[in-house]
Amino acid sequence: MSLLVVGTVALDTIETPFGKAERIIGGSATHFSLAASFFKNNIQLVSVIGEDFPTAGIKNFTDRNIDIKGLQVKKGEKSFFWAGRYHNDMNTRDTLDTQLNVLADFDPIVPEEYRNTEYLMLGNLMPKLQMKVLDQMNKRPKLVMLDTMNFWMDIAWDDVIEVLKRVDVLTVNDEEARQLSKEYSLVKAARKILTMGPQYLIIKKGENGALLFHKDELFFAPALPLEEVFDPTGAGDSFAGGFIGHLSSTDDISFANMKRAVIYGSAIASFCVEKFGIDRVVSLSNDEFKNRVSQFVSLVQFDITLS
Amino acid sequence: MSLLVVGTVALDTIETPFGKAERIIGGSATHFSLAASFFKNNIQLVSVIGEDFPTAGIKNFTDRNIDIKGLQVKKGEKSFFWAGRYHNDMNTRDTLDTQLNVLADFDPIVPEEYRNTEYLMLGNLMPKLQMKVLDQMNKRPKLVMLDTMNFWMDIAWDDVIEVLKRVDVLTVNDEEARQLSKEYSLVKAARKILTMGPQYLIIKKGENGALLFHKDELFFAPALPLEEVFDPTGAGDSFAGGFIGHLSSTDDISFANMKRAVIYGSAIASFCVEKFGIDRVVSLSNDEFKNRVSQFVSLVQFDITLS
Repeated sequence: MSLLVVGTVALDTIETPFGKAERIIGGSATHFSLAASFFKNNIQLVSVIGEDFPTAGIKNFTDRNIDIKGLQVKKGEKSFFWAGRYHNDMNTRDTLDTQLNVLADFDPIVPEEYRNTEYLMLGNLMPKLQMKVLDQMNKRPKLVMLDTMNFWMDIAWDDVIEVLKRVDVLTVNDEEARQLSKEYSLVKAARKILTMGPQYLIIKKGENGALLFHKDELFFAPALPLEEVFDPTGAGDSFAGGFIGHLSSTDDISFANMKRAVIYGSAIASFCVEKFGIDRVVSLSNDEFKNRVSQFVSLVQFDITLS
Repeated sequence: MSLLVVGTVALDTIETPFGKAERIIGGSATHFSLAASFFKNNIQLVSVIGEDFPTAGIKNFTDRNIDIKGLQVKKGEKSFFWAGRYHNDMNTRDTLDTQLNVLADFDPIVPEEYRNTEYLMLGNLMPKLQMKVLDQMNKRPKLVMLDTMNFWMDIAWDDVIEVLKRVDVLTVNDEEARQLSKEYSLVKAARKILTMGPQYLIIKKGENGALLFHKDELFFAPALPLEEVFDPTGAGDSFAGGFIGHLSSTDDISFANMKRAVIYGSAIASFCVEKFGIDRVVSLSNDEFKNRVSQFVSLVQFDITLS
């Protein structure tokens, strides 16, 4: 089934203990769509870039059959730019520079031919813009997944609450779940968030894996323990892209299939962090992916007979 | 097969956001042996207490058929005492008081009838004392498991290195694994530690679960997400006790059985944190335990067919 992803397409300058990469292709919609493109073709992308965005960058999308009809290119303007430096633990980072540029007055326009799409991924953006995308749909998609962050809870709380009422799956990290629910325990936080709109909640815990909550069901997937995390940027977005990519390609939103989607998302994310930016995901082969999934199987499988 | 546990039997005063418990029964050997007693009878205990240790405290051991022949009672002396206060996150704590008392000149004497035991758990103690226990054994046990901590790495590095050469399974937390290996990545840390003596390494990550490493094999078990962690004291020791309790009762040290042991240990630890000290583990029923294990199964199981 059709999948529309909305979010940022950015230029990132990233410093890690392993090196520095300048003005590379990044942004949430980039990582979503490239990860999802591993599962299905013709993903629909709505985002905005400036004239400075390199042609080679665009080719990453078209090479993966991502439909860029909804990618606005603003003449005479510059792309959204982010620069950050990761600390030695790779879990914490400092933002060195944020230039909104084209994002400052981004007006997400959903092309007419995307308005009946079945699966919709709303990346982390101002909640009013996320609602504006929803308003343009001809019919309620089968599944709407939303990412947001503490920044919007700080400055646009009421809008976050409004948009939450209109989505099926929410992805946030543990601190965001706590802020949104005002509960410290993630189990209590999840129970509360599941009364605020979404029927499914994914709490991302970085190197400590991800939890999927739905009613009284709970599923946990670890992150694959890696020898080296080279660049964590985009791991969460790649996870979400793999998750919704699998769901939309199978068109099955049962809890059993969502568990598979969490494992597939975790597998894609485990590749994302192996190189700077999108480098590892765009070079990923089917065999590499299958081997990685089988590593997840052996990582958590055990054989206990419950009498 | 026989199981000998060596460690501390203490009095703890614990403050958490939920309340305060004064001079309750604690210590590593207490939590090990009570958790292990869920899996087998006649666990052998070597430790030391003072005259102030309450009779009711002793009864916790004898009620569970734990053999206390090796528990020294020092006339006119006081038991090891620890007081701590947990922060709101329940992951960090301040030590308010440590009184070594009987522990200051503890000389662990292994009773003659314990010296042929097959399974040996060496709790966190001065590494010289851990070696002294090993020296008293008539034959090398089938499996020796060791717990240690950063404190000994700081003040008795060479002794830690020596005792490591004589054990099969090491349990440490993530920070201790990093300090011991001088590697930040836990995968690299594990590879290095597995050249230092132990063939098996368990890295405990508290609420983020536990990793079991052996050669090129890797197994991960999450901690059960709980609504409320009431008192985390002893969770790691209960985990270790459940682990070696299952191994010794089945007398099977295959990797497949160690995976089960990690799950059983995690299940016991998930009960330990529900009440102060040993309260929850000593009241645990078989049915409660089985239900908890089945929660672990549904928490991580997924169904992916690898083609």
